[in-house]
Amino acid sequence: MTTPTLIGIDWGTSSFRASLIDADGGTLESREDPSGILAIQNRDFEGFLKEAIDDWMCDFPDTPIIASGMITSRNGWLETPYASLPLGIKELAGEMVKHRTQDGRTIHFITGCSQDPNGERPDVIRGEETELIGYLTAHGLESGIFLLPGTHNKWLRVEDGRITQFVTHMTGEVYSLLGKHSILAFGEETTPFCEDAFLRGLTAVKKRPGSLLSNIFTTRTLSLFGNITKEATADYLSGVLIGEEFLSSLRVDGSPPSLTIIGRQDLSLRYQKAAEFFGIPSTIATPGLSQRGQLAIARSAELVP
Amino acid sequence: MTTPTLIGIDWGTSSFRASLIDADGGTLESREDPSGILAIQNRDFEGFLKEAIDDWMCDFPDTPIIASGMITSRNGWLETPYASLPLGIKELAGEMVKHRTQDGRTIHFITGCSQDPNGERPDVIRGEETELIGYLTAHGLESGIFLLPGTHNKWLRVEDGRITQFVTHMTGEVYSLLGKHSILAFGEETTPFCEDAFLRGLTAVKKRPGSLLSNIFTTRTLSLFGNITKEATADYLSGVLIGEEFLSSLRVDGSPPSLTIIGRQDLSLRYQKAAEFFGIPSTIATPGLSQRGQLAIARSAELVP
Repeated sequence: MTTPTLIGIDWGTSSFRASLIDADGGTLESREDPSGILAIQNRDFEGFLKEAIDDWMCDFPDTPIIASGMITSRNGWLETPYASLPLGIKELAGEMVKHRTQDGRTIHFITGCSQDPNGERPDVIRGEETELIGYLTAHGLESGIFLLPGTHNKWLRVEDGRITQFVTHMTGEVYSLLGKHSILAFGEETTPFCEDAFLRGLTAVKKRPGSLLSNIFTTRTLSLFGNITKEATADYLSGVLIGEEFLSSLRVDGSPPSLTIIGRQDLSLRYQKAAEFFGIPSTIATPGLSQRGQLAIARSAELVP
Repeated sequence: MTTPTLIGIDWGTSSFRASLIDADGGTLESREDPSGILAIQNRDFEGFLKEAIDDWMCDFPDTPIIASGMITSRNGWLETPYASLPLGIKELAGEMVKHRTQDGRTIHFITGCSQDPNGERPDVIRGEETELIGYLTAHGLESGIFLLPGTHNKWLRVEDGRITQFVTHMTGEVYSLLGKHSILAFGEETTPFCEDAFLRGLTAVKKRPGSLLSNIFTTRTLSLFGNITKEATADYLSGVLIGEEFLSSLRVDGSPPSLTIIGRQDLSLRYQKAAEFFGIPSTIATPGLSQRGQLAIARSAELVP
């Protein structure tokens, strides 16, 4: 096998991915595991990593290892300090934290970023900054508004190649809680995406903005009176929540001229539909951005040629 | 013991209460149980009731029995049709549903009410209407704006003695879900009410209205940076949620000249603080209103003298 330029670890709250990255940021091989940081027994992150990629570490003893994501949070392997805004490749490269494993291997941890840490609205990211850097590098971009949907969705503003502002919305987590544990629960069955119900949810919010706690209850009552099928309630609720997220963003930061969506394909498509609903042109990024971001940061730090 | 005028059953999702009611709506004796309708094994509501008040039924064979609350919902004893708006004592009396038990006793079920059942924002209540009638009767009132906090909070408008409009907010349920299952979880420990944190939550929402999904995340980040104590996070989150509920109500229906709060004492105090924060004079009702409402409705139906 070609010797990789970099070994990249993307370790989040709910998943682990290790990749052999080539000189162009492409992925030669990758391994995924659902063992996010909260699933690691006794916090033995080093043991898990060794198990996962021992052969790579043996085969490529001189290839630098870089890691990003929630692995550097309080519940992760090594809590690294938050970098501050504005944040670009150079800052991320400069703020990396080196850690030596018991086997004598060095891991370079990319740290997260905080905004307004001592103010009334602090915010934090860990991992999304690396994906975003990957996108900027791959497309030679210096500015834009970016949306990274997930459990905690991030909206980020980039100016002159650096992140200057961001906001977290707990949309994904609230959707999951309501769907599993509330009176609105719709179970875990996966039904095909019902676009009509999703748009109906968006419309409900547009008609009554800033009323999330009552808007979500209509998921229950529409179903109670047979005005929506049971199968469609999940997508209706999704529309209500995502609509609230968009309206909040547009109210606080204005309507962006365009939006780039970086995330899981199914979620990205949903957010693209919402963007269209609110009249915002959008682009969905292709996957593999963490690896590109890790390479760009490693290169800026002169870890790799 | 004095013969009661009425036996009143107030049976909700999470609690049961039976009362012997006198001719003034006062409670001679009452029995409570945490067995809400969802806790009744095999839906044997009749068996549970017999167990709970068999002696009363024997001692007072001619006293009418009346029941209100979620007991008339789909998951209850007998699903009764929803009455429609406007809704007052006469309508509630006229819409009562009689049910004969296996022992030959008659139970008069007070039904709930729906609003806009075939429209885009249906809403429903079951039980709160009876408490509200109790309040109106006790105070000789014909109009006002009423707030009944609980798992699903109701804001109701009364005109000419009848409910003309209402809105449900899922504030209580969302608070409980976030506190138990989310990244914001603060466990079940009860700490004294921290008014400062509650007001801080209200202030956060006032400064950034219509952004619930990002506002709640500040509960996490303020705590992460030590800007709020762990003990105070629950009350901060409570302020964020209740603030959202108030702002939504004020936006949709305007600021009421005054507000009457009917509910559990601790919750009512919290809502009174929020009302004060938003400049709305408020009154907290004294307990025992379901019984008063049941008597007023029974009297209007000529079940009792």
